[in-house]
Amino acid sequence: MAVYTEVSDEELEGFLATYDIGTVLSYKGIAEGVENTNYFLHTTEGSYILTLYEKRVREADLPFFLGLMQHLANKGLNCPLPVNNRQGQPLGRVAGRPAVIITFLDGIAVRRPTAKHCGALGGALAQLHLAGQDFAMDRPNALSLDAWAPLFGLAEAQADTVSGGLAERTRRELAYLQDAWPKGLPTGIIHADLFTDNVFFIGSEVSGLIDFYFACTDAFAYDVAICLNAWCFEQDGSFNLTKGQALLAGYQAVRPLTAQEIEALPVLCRGSAMRFMLTRLVDWLNVPPGALVKPKDPLEYDRKLHFHRHVRNAREYGLEA
Amino acid sequence: MAVYTEVSDEELEGFLATYDIGTVLSYKGIAEGVENTNYFLHTTEGSYILTLYEKRVREADLPFFLGLMQHLANKGLNCPLPVNNRQGQPLGRVAGRPAVIITFLDGIAVRRPTAKHCGALGGALAQLHLAGQDFAMDRPNALSLDAWAPLFGLAEAQADTVSGGLAERTRRELAYLQDAWPKGLPTGIIHADLFTDNVFFIGSEVSGLIDFYFACTDAFAYDVAICLNAWCFEQDGSFNLTKGQALLAGYQAVRPLTAQEIEALPVLCRGSAMRFMLTRLVDWLNVPPGALVKPKDPLEYDRKLHFHRHVRNAREYGLEA
Repeated sequence: MAVYTEVSDEELEGFLATYDIGTVLSYKGIAEGVENTNYFLHTTEGSYILTLYEKRVREADLPFFLGLMQHLANKGLNCPLPVNNRQGQPLGRVAGRPAVIITFLDGIAVRRPTAKHCGALGGALAQLHLAGQDFAMDRPNALSLDAWAPLFGLAEAQADTVSGGLAERTRRELAYLQDAWPKGLPTGIIHADLFTDNVFFIGSEVSGLIDFYFACTDAFAYDVAICLNAWCFEQDGSFNLTKGQALLAGYQAVRPLTAQEIEALPVLCRGSAMRFMLTRLVDWLNVPPGALVKPKDPLEYDRKLHFHRHVRNAREYGLEA
Repeated sequence: MAVYTEVSDEELEGFLATYDIGTVLSYKGIAEGVENTNYFLHTTEGSYILTLYEKRVREADLPFFLGLMQHLANKGLNCPLPVNNRQGQPLGRVAGRPAVIITFLDGIAVRRPTAKHCGALGGALAQLHLAGQDFAMDRPNALSLDAWAPLFGLAEAQADTVSGGLAERTRRELAYLQDAWPKGLPTGIIHADLFTDNVFFIGSEVSGLIDFYFACTDAFAYDVAICLNAWCFEQDGSFNLTKGQALLAGYQAVRPLTAQEIEALPVLCRGSAMRFMLTRLVDWLNVPPGALVKPKDPLEYDRKLHFHRHVRNAREYGLEA
């Protein structure tokens, strides 16, 4: 939940006058996303989201994110379409913030996905990968292998206060990943943050993928690994093989994995678990006093790492032979 | 802004299954209201607000508030309509809270109303008073004359820390109000909290009156006085006579004030200013540490009281002869 920036009527009117989206009938701050300020906007032309980018999104990255969403939406992917203003640009400013208007997508983020949801998610992920293939821009993944040692450096001294032995476990895992990290995998646009809150469903169909603000250029199979981590573990920490099977089968029905990708899947799962463990650990150790947002538990991903270290091949994630 | 209670998908589905409002397409917590938790709800049948009542609304008062909104909406007033569930009741429970679904109203709350807005507001207020006349229930005003001395008792000892002389000024004003408070004025349902955030406009037309959770049975002209206080002062504390004229003319075009009401208007303005000064003062002196919501300034209403003490008759508020 977050509405960080209040927009006055005058500012909103001035901003909307630069668009061709009809007369505003209603707007309300919505409690969604922790990075940005979002307003639900109802006009005579339809429903939209007005997003004001707060400090955590780098303004220099916005042309990539917005261009990508327009590219994907135009390819028919269910993702928000940034609306161009009368100058033909999606990006404007309101209340001192970079701001966009995107189309509103119906659908509900499921907190406890079923195998059916996982299957649909797998298919949508593969569609995203295919639809992004001819997108012209690229953006390196700022939170991949090279970032992990520096990230860990911010937390290493205090890591054992979170869990005994965490520092040593992480050092060893980072050394392993440094050696074993795969190269030359099929690469393109990945979402890189496709957690359950970023996927809308109507019934068991995916109606929307949102929040492209970690999207970047990296191995497709790394995105699959992120989703296995985010969608296929139960709350007690166990891996649900049925959900893994559904997710991978859903993905492969649209874009079959190569032999190299299949072989790399266990190490990619370890790497993506490491990425979320580390960013959560740094956040956990740096909660400002009086913070509203409860940090996410880094140990959830430490436990997932433990699971992945015992996986020998992709079949243990549910990949059909 | 406030989303106090998180509703799980399962709870929401279970709750909505008791209504006949179609399939849910989307729901989002909205940052609106400081008393309750509100979700914007989009279904195959339309748009709604799901409200969960938090502790500050007394559950025993809900049948009055909900019955009143249904009565007013059925009379054609632009106010939210609480939707009955399949048992024919508007009130249910979700996530342990009393909860209702009300129809969504388009419109925008103006932060700086013009005289045109004030005129439309006056008309809408009079329509509310007329539409409420045959509503069968009543509810005494718990924040009128008899409540002010006890309220002041909670703040008296510290009042001068907020502004020098405030305690003495307030004691004298309370003594005056006790003597001068009018009796026998035309009485009925009043909104009692019709500040600018509770009135939606599309253009300069009123499209909705919301937030009936202070509604009660009291003098109609007291509601007019509340609105003069809330709508016709400028941010620098000056009274805008043009706005007062517009508000009173708008009201009288629908429901002319009686001679007795006109005579009482200055003392009613003093009383309603006292009511908001006192509740704000108590809140101001009792801000919990780490509170999110900035309390409203009691001195704004102390200054309005000062203005009203120098008013001799209703013409000084803009009443046309």
